[in-house]
Amino acid sequence: MPERQPLPRPDLRQIKIGVGPVAVFGASNFPLAFSTAGGDTASALAAGCSVVVKAHSGHMATADFVAQVIERAVEKSNMPKGVFNMIYGNGVGEPLVKHPLIQAVGFTGSLRGGRALCDMAAARPQPIPVFAEMSSINPMLMLPDALKNRGEKIAQDLADSVVLGCGQFCTNPGLILGIKSVEFSQLISNLTDIMGAKPAQTMLNAGTLKSYTAGLEHLTEHQGIKHLAGQTQQGNQAQPQLFKADVELLLAGDQLLQEEIFGPTTVIIEVEDKAQLIQALQSMNGQLTATLIADEADLTEFADVVPVLEEKAGRLLINGYPTGVEVCDAMVHGGPYPATSDARGTSVGTLAIDRYLRPVCYQNYPQSLLPEALKDSNPLQILRLVNSEMTREAI
Amino acid sequence: MPERQPLPRPDLRQIKIGVGPVAVFGASNFPLAFSTAGGDTASALAAGCSVVVKAHSGHMATADFVAQVIERAVEKSNMPKGVFNMIYGNGVGEPLVKHPLIQAVGFTGSLRGGRALCDMAAARPQPIPVFAEMSSINPMLMLPDALKNRGEKIAQDLADSVVLGCGQFCTNPGLILGIKSVEFSQLISNLTDIMGAKPAQTMLNAGTLKSYTAGLEHLTEHQGIKHLAGQTQQGNQAQPQLFKADVELLLAGDQLLQEEIFGPTTVIIEVEDKAQLIQALQSMNGQLTATLIADEADLTEFADVVPVLEEKAGRLLINGYPTGVEVCDAMVHGGPYPATSDARGTSVGTLAIDRYLRPVCYQNYPQSLLPEALKDSNPLQILRLVNSEMTREAI
Repeated sequence: MPERQPLPRPDLRQIKIGVGPVAVFGASNFPLAFSTAGGDTASALAAGCSVVVKAHSGHMATADFVAQVIERAVEKSNMPKGVFNMIYGNGVGEPLVKHPLIQAVGFTGSLRGGRALCDMAAARPQPIPVFAEMSSINPMLMLPDALKNRGEKIAQDLADSVVLGCGQFCTNPGLILGIKSVEFSQLISNLTDIMGAKPAQTMLNAGTLKSYTAGLEHLTEHQGIKHLAGQTQQGNQAQPQLFKADVELLLAGDQLLQEEIFGPTTVIIEVEDKAQLIQALQSMNGQLTATLIADEADLTEFADVVPVLEEKAGRLLINGYPTGVEVCDAMVHGGPYPATSDARGTSVGTLAIDRYLRPVCYQNYPQSLLPEALKDSNPLQILRLVNSEMTREAI
Repeated sequence: MPERQPLPRPDLRQIKIGVGPVAVFGASNFPLAFSTAGGDTASALAAGCSVVVKAHSGHMATADFVAQVIERAVEKSNMPKGVFNMIYGNGVGEPLVKHPLIQAVGFTGSLRGGRALCDMAAARPQPIPVFAEMSSINPMLMLPDALKNRGEKIAQDLADSVVLGCGQFCTNPGLILGIKSVEFSQLISNLTDIMGAKPAQTMLNAGTLKSYTAGLEHLTEHQGIKHLAGQTQQGNQAQPQLFKADVELLLAGDQLLQEEIFGPTTVIIEVEDKAQLIQALQSMNGQLTATLIADEADLTEFADVVPVLEEKAGRLLINGYPTGVEVCDAMVHGGPYPATSDARGTSVGTLAIDRYLRPVCYQNYPQSLLPEALKDSNPLQILRLVNSEMTREAI
């Protein structure tokens, strides 16, 4: 608006560019889909950032193999040398996060590990953002009408979901909530039978099994938690387990109950009524997902539960199991702390790229010095916001 | 894609909602435009967050007056009660940032104050994001062709910009870079004359004047920095000052030279050639703005300076002065640390809203439980990304 009074508006154009080199700490449980060449690496590269991956100690050979594939792809597609890098070994994570050239961190793993990286990054002379996907128990609400209509199938599907992949998903259902009723008692009874009959499975590695065993011990030792089903945990495999906890623990903010136990186990909580259900949900930590198992009548009756779930989780499901994480524009694999370190992000889907972008504004720049995306002629033919209108037209 | 093989894709829809209550620490230098009712408050409200403003100690009565106006507007427009709040007093900032309900912080002020809030927020049981706009010396590069063609006018405009509003802008030009030449020597000589004749001005408050005086003392005491113009700083007003520093200080990463001195002063640095100019820029901290004063021949000759500036600043200007900050979609009032605490944000312009939003994804939700923005019929008639196409059509 050069004609604006009293002062003309300058020519202002904005683009987002990469924040700079990103350190990636991949997941233990997806050596291929979410580690060396996972969503963090992909979104950092898409943002125009170079990447330094710390090879996961649980699958170093796989990491190395994938890194070599990426290196060949970098060469073949004429990407700049050094755009992808990998480092190996114990103790290399800390100097990586503290290196002055690193500008952001992507992490998938435990709450303890993720929080340590966040603290490290925040204490740098120049603090940098960390997106750490950490701990979620993914509550599932079993609503009355659904239980009445298809309680047996729900018990079967739920048990299958809990033990899928030996329960080693960030989105594994770790907490089952239902309202006291004949039907919910029946669900508990069915689940107890089914979970008790589930076979032991082999976990990713010895460390994961050790953590699982320790997690089960904590639950078993807890006064307010009752063991319902599962063989004694011993040997080299993980035994599926079922527990039931007193709702008072949740209401009192008991943190043990809200700790993610990575493996084939889940905890049932029975509430008195809808009011207590909402109270219980409000007492929960942030989550990656929250699920309603609901039929028609439930959707009306429990509509006011949804705003509570929105506050708590990054993804809300109805009549599905949260373990599948679709890669698409709409996906959110994120959520309030401690599900992640920053509720504003996601590590899966195209929005993940945003974590590694920063805006730059050009004021009165001549065409010759503007990035292609901002030139009048729109040589990239992209959709742009020009004077408040989305358009692919030239200016 | 319910027909997709081997598995159907679920119905996934994403919306962004507010992160929760935001704590706002407004600027000292814009009691009306960027404090109680400034960009942080406006963008938090736009994101759907409630706001708690800490009244700035430098203008408590103004803050209170503006808060009352906002309160009346809240009532008149039927916004929820409690959506806007203000607290007063020394020492209330820390408990505010540490309060478990606060989910994000917006701050404008000093590096020391901003960093303290960042550290506090990062150390909470649940860390929260802080956008702190802090310290920038806004380098201006005086290129040779421009100096040849209009050196005298440049000296005049630059001096006027340095003393505008007694230099109390975050975007005040605090560092002037030029290449050794007859013309740059002439600019320095002109600036020395003009700055020496600029009258003293009254600052915002006694604290600001005290900081300015201390900043000048640091520069004066520095061995590598020479005082060129300005009356001795004393009394109740700020005396405009001009300094010249050795480029070696910048190359050696001397932090004193890069500290923002809030007030009517600037530092000139002379470099040997373009190579040294680029080196000097690479040695600089992150900035809110970086400006080229350039004519036609300069734009070709110095095109490779632009990528260096992109790494360093949130807004790049040509032939303007950075003090004006337009409120619009394209504005970036942000930049790499220590200009702000998070290079991915801005505190001015519509992108500022993004700082306080988090995404939520709905999987297989029925129409009745979806937010208006996500319903098939598009009742809000907004532009939406549907199956990779931007559209206002119903689904």
